[in-house]
Amino acid sequence: MSHATKDKSKLLGRIRRIRGQAEAVERALGAEIGCADVLMLVASMRGAINGLTAELMEDHIRYHVADPDHDSDADRARGAAELIEVVRTYLK
Amino acid sequence: MSHATKDKSKLLGRIRRIRGQAEAVERALGAEIGCADVLMLVASMRGAINGLTAELMEDHIRYHVADPDHDSDADRARGAAELIEVVRTYLK
Amino acid sequence: MSHATKDKSKLLGRIRRIRGQAEAVERALGAEIGCADVLMLVASMRGAINGLTAELMEDHIRYHVADPDHDSDADRARGAAELIEVVRTYLK
Amino acid sequence: MSHATKDKSKLLGRIRRIRGQAEAVERALGAEIGCADVLMLVASMRGAINGLTAELMEDHIRYHVADPDHDSDADRARGAAELIEVVRTYLK
Repeated sequence: MSHATKDKSKLLGRIRRIRGQAEAVERALGAEIGCADVLMLVASMRGAINGLTAELMEDHIRYHVADPDHDSDADRARGAAELIEVVRTYLK
Repeated sequence: MSHATKDKSKLLGRIRRIRGQAEAVERALGAEIGCADVLMLVASMRGAINGLTAELMEDHIRYHVADPDHDSDADRARGAAELIEVVRTYLK
Repeated sequence: MSHATKDKSKLLGRIRRIRGQAEAVERALGAEIGCADVLMLVASMRGAINGLTAELMEDHIRYHVADPDHDSDADRARGAAELIEVVRTYLK
Repeated sequence: MSHATKDKSKLLGRIRRIRGQAEAVERALGAEIGCADVLMLVASMRGAINGLTAELMEDHIRYHVADPDHDSDADRARGAAELIEVVRTYLK
């Protein structure tokens, strides 16, 4: 992706943690770990995916639609800020 | 987990696909792939996690609470069958 | 439904609040209220529906599958308790 | 809200159906209807709320951030079109 390097390394950190969670679920399925504990691991993974999604959407809005902090059109800047807040609420 | 071997290998297949999807998202973040395409990959991953969750919950109900196909109590068997259907509806 | 009267009145309280939220969204759409504020009202409604769903599933498990507090089979009681915890985690 | 009248009447139609679904759930809780059937009604309601959310977010993007069909900046128009597609995928 073409976003700022700082944002990209945050996103990479998030997806690497999710891959690590997938590996932990794989090991848990192979080991003698209770079904309910595996479900709790998968629930954390789902939470992490929602967090990644919210951040990707926010970056998409900021870099490809309108940046609330720098848009010269005040109405559009406010619309984009509200949209980012809504996305965070829905995916938290 | 202590479930039937057949169910376990299905679950392992699912989580390995999810790990593969996480690796694909990681590569996409490093490459010149559009933000919206990365979001679509993450959406597929979320769908796959819902599918894994539904299957884990169904197995938990079947092996640790009540098996709709073999429970000697007809009311409990029906209650478990309905619960599995509800879980599938919510997570599809 | 055939559940205990106490549980039924809790469920009725929840669905009445959700109906009230739907009425508030309807009024907001008719009034000069900002789009983002309407989305926040709808997000609260979605949270309330998740809460109702978790409670209905818990009651279904307890009354129609296995009651963790009263089942004579200790394994099944534990399996049902774990399932209720998982449902709450997924729908909170 | 200040959106086009045509969009507003679609949104009103959606929220009125959701209110009707809430009333149906309330009646079902009072009647001798099975718990699993009530859960299926609530699942439909949740689907309808996701549909309303997707439409509200699309309208917000279109009227308050950037309209993919009319924006003079081609990059921003494409970014907004992609965002609407992503929102629909996540909430369908």
